[in-house]
Amino acid sequence: MAKVNIETANIEAIKRIQSAQPVLTGIGIAQDVVPGMRKNLILHAGPPITWQRMSGPMRGAVMGALMYEGLAKDPADAEKVAASGEVKFEPWHEHSGVGPMAGVATSSMPVWIVENKTHGNKAYCTLNEGLGKVLRFGAFSPEVITHLKWMENVLAPLLKETLAKKGDVNLKSIIAQALQMGDEVHNRNRAGTSLLFRELAPCIIDTSFSVADKKRVLEFINSNDHFFLNLSMPAAKAILASAEWISGSTIVTTMARNGTDFGIRLSGLKDRWFTAPALKVSGLYFPGFSEEDANPDIGDSAITETCGLGAFSMASAPAIVKFVGGKATDSIEYTRRMYEITETESDHFQIPSLDFRGSPTGINLLKVCETGILPQINTGIAHKNPGIGQVGAGLVNPPVKCFEDALEAFVEAYCPEKFL
Amino acid sequence: MAKVNIETANIEAIKRIQSAQPVLTGIGIAQDVVPGMRKNLILHAGPPITWQRMSGPMRGAVMGALMYEGLAKDPADAEKVAASGEVKFEPWHEHSGVGPMAGVATSSMPVWIVENKTHGNKAYCTLNEGLGKVLRFGAFSPEVITHLKWMENVLAPLLKETLAKKGDVNLKSIIAQALQMGDEVHNRNRAGTSLLFRELAPCIIDTSFSVADKKRVLEFINSNDHFFLNLSMPAAKAILASAEWISGSTIVTTMARNGTDFGIRLSGLKDRWFTAPALKVSGLYFPGFSEEDANPDIGDSAITETCGLGAFSMASAPAIVKFVGGKATDSIEYTRRMYEITETESDHFQIPSLDFRGSPTGINLLKVCETGILPQINTGIAHKNPGIGQVGAGLVNPPVKCFEDALEAFVEAYCPEKFL
Repeated sequence: MAKVNIETANIEAIKRIQSAQPVLTGIGIAQDVVPGMRKNLILHAGPPITWQRMSGPMRGAVMGALMYEGLAKDPADAEKVAASGEVKFEPWHEHSGVGPMAGVATSSMPVWIVENKTHGNKAYCTLNEGLGKVLRFGAFSPEVITHLKWMENVLAPLLKETLAKKGDVNLKSIIAQALQMGDEVHNRNRAGTSLLFRELAPCIIDTSFSVADKKRVLEFINSNDHFFLNLSMPAAKAILASAEWISGSTIVTTMARNGTDFGIRLSGLKDRWFTAPALKVSGLYFPGFSEEDANPDIGDSAITETCGLGAFSMASAPAIVKFVGGKATDSIEYTRRMYEITETESDHFQIPSLDFRGSPTGINLLKVCETGILPQINTGIAHKNPGIGQVGAGLVNPPVKCFEDALEAFVEAYCPEKFL
Repeated sequence: MAKVNIETANIEAIKRIQSAQPVLTGIGIAQDVVPGMRKNLILHAGPPITWQRMSGPMRGAVMGALMYEGLAKDPADAEKVAASGEVKFEPWHEHSGVGPMAGVATSSMPVWIVENKTHGNKAYCTLNEGLGKVLRFGAFSPEVITHLKWMENVLAPLLKETLAKKGDVNLKSIIAQALQMGDEVHNRNRAGTSLLFRELAPCIIDTSFSVADKKRVLEFINSNDHFFLNLSMPAAKAILASAEWISGSTIVTTMARNGTDFGIRLSGLKDRWFTAPALKVSGLYFPGFSEEDANPDIGDSAITETCGLGAFSMASAPAIVKFVGGKATDSIEYTRRMYEITETESDHFQIPSLDFRGSPTGINLLKVCETGILPQINTGIAHKNPGIGQVGAGLVNPPVKCFEDALEAFVEAYCPEKFL
């Protein structure tokens, strides 16, 4: 068994997180750019899961994705194909990427390419579909597929050309600014979306596409305040991935949910998942829906919290309580509590209402276990059945078992003296 | 002498302020749309002032404006023309408008047209010139004039066509959203500018202008986070103008500075100015400048504070302290104190960090005099000499004499029993 110095390992992990420079460099088709992507592979959010154990919204998204990809002709056929073993399911997190909610992606889908300029690693994420009936919440009707095809054939090529003209977009800077503008870049991305829109629009005008296409792309981004989420997520992933394997480190590098299980991974234990059943979200429901309709916690978007953003930075985004519930002043409490379980404060992401204190950064497994304080997450809520979509938003924690199991495994793997 | 019920009058004033609906309807040339505008008239910020008493930055702006308008051929000639009596100087506030800093406007300049849809009154303001050497801070070099000509010949016609395609833009809604995004819409307008940019960009693409013009306009707006200031100001003016003349009301409807004097006006005393020497601003200076370089308080932008925005809503914009000085938590104190001198809380403008409390609305002269608390203003600082520009930003109050004199005049005019 290896002997390591946890403190030194964590200092290294934090150094990599602080120095990471996530930058949007372009757009590619998943099969061309995502490591290991292939025609019969479906990527999904959270830890590994089989078709049989998948939640309703993830099943719905898989069915939609199979039809989009031409691997199934209708929903019934899609269910058959999904159960047949002909297609494989693997977590986005094992392919250098992240996916919001169901997080389902197939080989033809366009993805953002985010590069960590400091460490050279890349992260990927699909483009945000907008609101309403969308694949990520498990909807799979014909208009969902038509919209995804428009994204593949117009939105992505147009933005790809835009980025080629514009050059790299500094996501760390946009996130830092968005935190000064009421976003926490998980469930509130209005500022991030606005700042990105401002950066892109002058170059969108300059592309070779028709005026109608340019106009529709601008209107589409303007209509969707969550557009930036699919960039804050791979930015957070690109930051954390650089600390994903440091022998002896107790820093949490992944928190992710597939709608059935919640899974975490630890820097010092690299690719091992520690999972437990995902919990129900406590939140506000859209008219006509209640807690009974809710699927358990789902999506890779907790990568933002893992990176000190999202609910960890809720003090930056008091207006978010109108979406997830609670009082505005509660948002400061959520952030304050997260300093108890994190290793440091961000050098770059600052929280204005706390007099520009850096956001709580680097979840330390040992602190979680010592204090009993679980990471705070805010999140959208998907309907538990396939084909319906979002029904609300709220607050949730990971199951404590993930952390207990990770601690046990860490002790077993390293057996440092303090645990003997 | 008239007898009136102050309380009833103030209720009516507040009702008009709360129900006002300022909307951006278009762009026009000042001489075509601003009431009373003519070739040899120069509008300026603050209360009435003569050329002889004008501060350096206002003189500089007047000189630039005369050259822009073709009324003078060079700076020396401009000084002669300004002193000759051939041109007249009148406050923007007496022509249904407002101007930031020197606030100088001439007949050929394009202006935003803002309409209060509830009460039918209109307000006007020039378009924001951007940062650096600009007329409003008293700069008048050839590039300042060239830039103003570009605004007249490209920016304004392009945005006029954009607005014709788009239809009305709801400024009350944008301001309300901006307060949720870290703006107070006086010295911080990054969110307001972003939201406006998002609204306009899809229609800018649709105009008949060249790709190069469209691109330059988008880049110009994107490069200038104060672009929205010249809309938050006429929006505030359009709101307050509807309460400008209510017999017996002690609500303050104007606070404005010309760089020499600070002036206020009262709803119940209509057009009468109460003035006193403008104070120095306490703030942060740009590198190379200090308090010695500063001109006293200048500009009509205190119309935002008069409307419950700006420093009155600083709790919405903690990040602004990096610009005007102080700690982020101080910004909450500034807002809290303003509730002591205002009549009510806004129905529409909410402050997230105070659990969505409405912004302090309707400065009541009587409360100012009773408490001794003066309205808080945050502001840019101009160099005291013509031709230089902005040197910093900070915090300032009106001179107490304006309120003492207004109270005396009010008692004299109305003599209500409580004062006998």
